[in-house]
Amino acid sequence: MEEWFTEHNSPTEQVRWKIRRVLFEGKSEFQTIRIIETHDYGTMLILDGVVQVSEKDEAGYHEMLAHVPLYSHPNPRRVLIIGGGDGGTLREVLNHPGVEQAVMVEIDGMVVEQCRRHFPALAGGFNDPRTELIIGDGVAHVNQAPDASYDVVLVDGTDPLGPGEGLFNSDFYSHVSRILTEDGLTATHTSENPLIKPWVVETLVKKLAGIFPNTCLFRSEIPIYHTGSWYFALGSKGNDPRTSSFPVDRFLKHATPRNYYNEAIHRAAFAMPSHVEELLSRCQ
Amino acid sequence: MEEWFTEHNSPTEQVRWKIRRVLFEGKSEFQTIRIIETHDYGTMLILDGVVQVSEKDEAGYHEMLAHVPLYSHPNPRRVLIIGGGDGGTLREVLNHPGVEQAVMVEIDGMVVEQCRRHFPALAGGFNDPRTELIIGDGVAHVNQAPDASYDVVLVDGTDPLGPGEGLFNSDFYSHVSRILTEDGLTATHTSENPLIKPWVVETLVKKLAGIFPNTCLFRSEIPIYHTGSWYFALGSKGNDPRTSSFPVDRFLKHATPRNYYNEAIHRAAFAMPSHVEELLSRCQ
Repeated sequence: MEEWFTEHNSPTEQVRWKIRRVLFEGKSEFQTIRIIETHDYGTMLILDGVVQVSEKDEAGYHEMLAHVPLYSHPNPRRVLIIGGGDGGTLREVLNHPGVEQAVMVEIDGMVVEQCRRHFPALAGGFNDPRTELIIGDGVAHVNQAPDASYDVVLVDGTDPLGPGEGLFNSDFYSHVSRILTEDGLTATHTSENPLIKPWVVETLVKKLAGIFPNTCLFRSEIPIYHTGSWYFALGSKGNDPRTSSFPVDRFLKHATPRNYYNEAIHRAAFAMPSHVEELLSRCQ
Repeated sequence: MEEWFTEHNSPTEQVRWKIRRVLFEGKSEFQTIRIIETHDYGTMLILDGVVQVSEKDEAGYHEMLAHVPLYSHPNPRRVLIIGGGDGGTLREVLNHPGVEQAVMVEIDGMVVEQCRRHFPALAGGFNDPRTELIIGDGVAHVNQAPDASYDVVLVDGTDPLGPGEGLFNSDFYSHVSRILTEDGLTATHTSENPLIKPWVVETLVKKLAGIFPNTCLFRSEIPIYHTGSWYFALGSKGNDPRTSSFPVDRFLKHATPRNYYNEAIHRAAFAMPSHVEELLSRCQ
């Protein structure tokens, strides 16, 4: 057994975690899948050599990807998740009692199957009667879905290399806009930190800004990801989420305790470092 | 020559950067000093095997450590920096035209000498006539300084292992409080992320909360540090910086462009993830 898992952030930067135990190793028709137990971050999912999720810091990813858009929307009832095979985003979406249906389209059934087994804390949403789980191609689902059929679309895919590639192009986001209701929102991770690869973030923001009247970024802390500071992109057909009022009453009625997300964090997530403000000013 | 520099975040977690060039290697009477050139973060300072600063991401550290306290203070004129041998914090402090004197007490003259040579972008403050550089023991300086002699004290030391150890105890912060003016503030990094080592952050916050009427944390992004999300502790004898008004006019008069800090970032830096709010509630 390999003693360490090494992720290559670049040819000249690596992060390494000592493996306590290998829980699963396999190859689906889409990617290699490893689930390992580490000393520092608990159980980790690794797809094609890139760490996707850990038990220890998953709240900073799943809570933010779900709640920033859902609390920015006046009344989210139908939510589509593209990807998200580990179940964490689905779990957070279903914490909103107003959500009537959560459709999740994950391309890789083996990811769902193994995550349900090895990440039980993320899996609660799979048994919720409001969930419709589709193992299939998210891009095709979005292309074929009726107009105005979702209030929020969350894109929870891998990086733009591998099976997640189709989730990063303009044609995909044009269809996302089409299938959203009139005040609908979409959010996705940007896959890179703007300090390290500004051109990657800029390209994605420009795509969204060409389609959605209001486009912005929001930030979270995810130590296992490269740089630890993670940027999500948000496109809104309605209000600007940076200035729209926060639904305090709705938030307070949802009693679920959260490890990361709260009202102050929601507002703060839209504040951008000066170098990112400058990047965004090039995207108008 | 070693091909990679490896930092051990824990016995079971490492980060590695490929070395492009070694610019300096030496051993002072306090610590081992290495300055290397990396592909991803430019020039890096490493003390006793722990990375301290990089050209690429230094703004997230120096701008935040200096400006969050200085703009939280109504009129900072005399500023003390303990440590900060690379010069970055000094440079930012002197960007405030209202600062009449900046005293910097760095224990290790070799760090200052080598950083002035290899980090010219950080070194501007050393030649400013308002600067008094003392190569000596910061703890002794604080113990001996007259009452109410500084408006702001910035503690920019290494981790609590090695020469920075004395900067993390209650006796030190009692003297810091004594030498501060009546609405004075102090800030320091917490040396650990509260998700990974909550007890380290909790211990420091409890110390400060026992001495200062208003104690809080603020956050920044520093990819080269462990977890990438860096927490600073702030103790205020006067206003609570989280709720005191931001000096917009003063800020706008300071025309220096900044890579990280701005008004929105200042406010957002005080928003804490829920797990940190919980930690802070144990420190009251």
